[in-house]
Amino acid sequence: MTSKKNIRISDAVIRRLPRYRRCLETLMREGIERISSGELSDRIGYTASQIRQDLNNFGGFGQQGYGYNVQSLYDRIGEILGLDRKYTVIIVGSGNLGRALVNYAKYQQWGFYISALFDVKENLIGTTIRDIPILAYETLPDYLAEHSVDIGVICTGKTSAPEVLQKLVDGGVKGIWNFAAADLVVPKGVSIQDVHLSDSLSCLTYYMQHPEDSVR
Amino acid sequence: MTSKKNIRISDAVIRRLPRYRRCLETLMREGIERISSGELSDRIGYTASQIRQDLNNFGGFGQQGYGYNVQSLYDRIGEILGLDRKYTVIIVGSGNLGRALVNYAKYQQWGFYISALFDVKENLIGTTIRDIPILAYETLPDYLAEHSVDIGVICTGKTSAPEVLQKLVDGGVKGIWNFAAADLVVPKGVSIQDVHLSDSLSCLTYYMQHPEDSVR
Repeated sequence: MTSKKNIRISDAVIRRLPRYRRCLETLMREGIERISSGELSDRIGYTASQIRQDLNNFGGFGQQGYGYNVQSLYDRIGEILGLDRKYTVIIVGSGNLGRALVNYAKYQQWGFYISALFDVKENLIGTTIRDIPILAYETLPDYLAEHSVDIGVICTGKTSAPEVLQKLVDGGVKGIWNFAAADLVVPKGVSIQDVHLSDSLSCLTYYMQHPEDSVR
Repeated sequence: MTSKKNIRISDAVIRRLPRYRRCLETLMREGIERISSGELSDRIGYTASQIRQDLNNFGGFGQQGYGYNVQSLYDRIGEILGLDRKYTVIIVGSGNLGRALVNYAKYQQWGFYISALFDVKENLIGTTIRDIPILAYETLPDYLAEHSVDIGVICTGKTSAPEVLQKLVDGGVKGIWNFAAADLVVPKGVSIQDVHLSDSLSCLTYYMQHPEDSVR
């Protein structure tokens, strides 16, 4: 854990790491064991110097004239991203988006275990999706008192989101994955990532007017 | 259109604009007509100097001692983001995610008209979601030949995504909103925004290990 604690990496680098990891995963599937920053650049679209700089942030993996060991780099990035452990996840809101997340079975492989969904809709409570129970939203505080939950996913509307967040935080949840179109404020010690789909769509329409400015 | 063409704004600024716009929308609902960069800072969490710098990128809206006119700034940001016009949208893949997007009725209000979904599943073809028809995927090229479509949303699996992209591009679609976990390459003149949900989740688990580094 000591090495992890010493790492201070900029948010821009962190946001690029999952993409490196996905590329390395593909390389592993293709049976490629070593790769140079130049070859990585061809695949990933960042410049070779950007790649070397990014990867140097957390220790020099590459060796001059040898390149990167694909498996080690993949493992190390996973470790840095905290993907070398398991997470218990609950989802609040079992609409289409909540269901889409449950049905994306890959999360399970990656170590994210969805233990329950919560909803206010009477007709959904007591049913299951992929064997995961939909529980009454009013029982959320009790559930959190009895179960250790790492990540709470907010898939409700914007209006309910602050209250849901409060219940999750009060229940000791330290990671919030927010899909509601609300800008939520979390207390110290709690982390949040927002997926504002409309922001992404607005960026798309911007770049459609300015295709010459497009960046990846 | 001339003023639009002269704008060259960094991607980081573009990504912050939708958040400004959301904040301004809330202010409008609250009946607030003017706001200073300091007050905006309290609401949005960026520093006042960051805000002034961002907004100066596309012309000085603020007046010393007066602040920003909320409605004008909201309109101007919308214009810059290309949200002052209408877009025809089709969605390829009518699973939970595709459905979640269709059911998010706000898109309609914002000027995004979903005209059709496409799927390969026989039992879905010919049905509708919110009156929007689900058509056979094999008819996509013909559909694109007959209809003008601005944005194609890829809600298929990773494996089909490159082929879907090719069909959309061949059919003249200039904006791609990609939800598949694939890093797609688009030709010049076509814009793409990826929503890689797993990337966002990986950033969350990073920040859960390093809560002290958390940024918004």
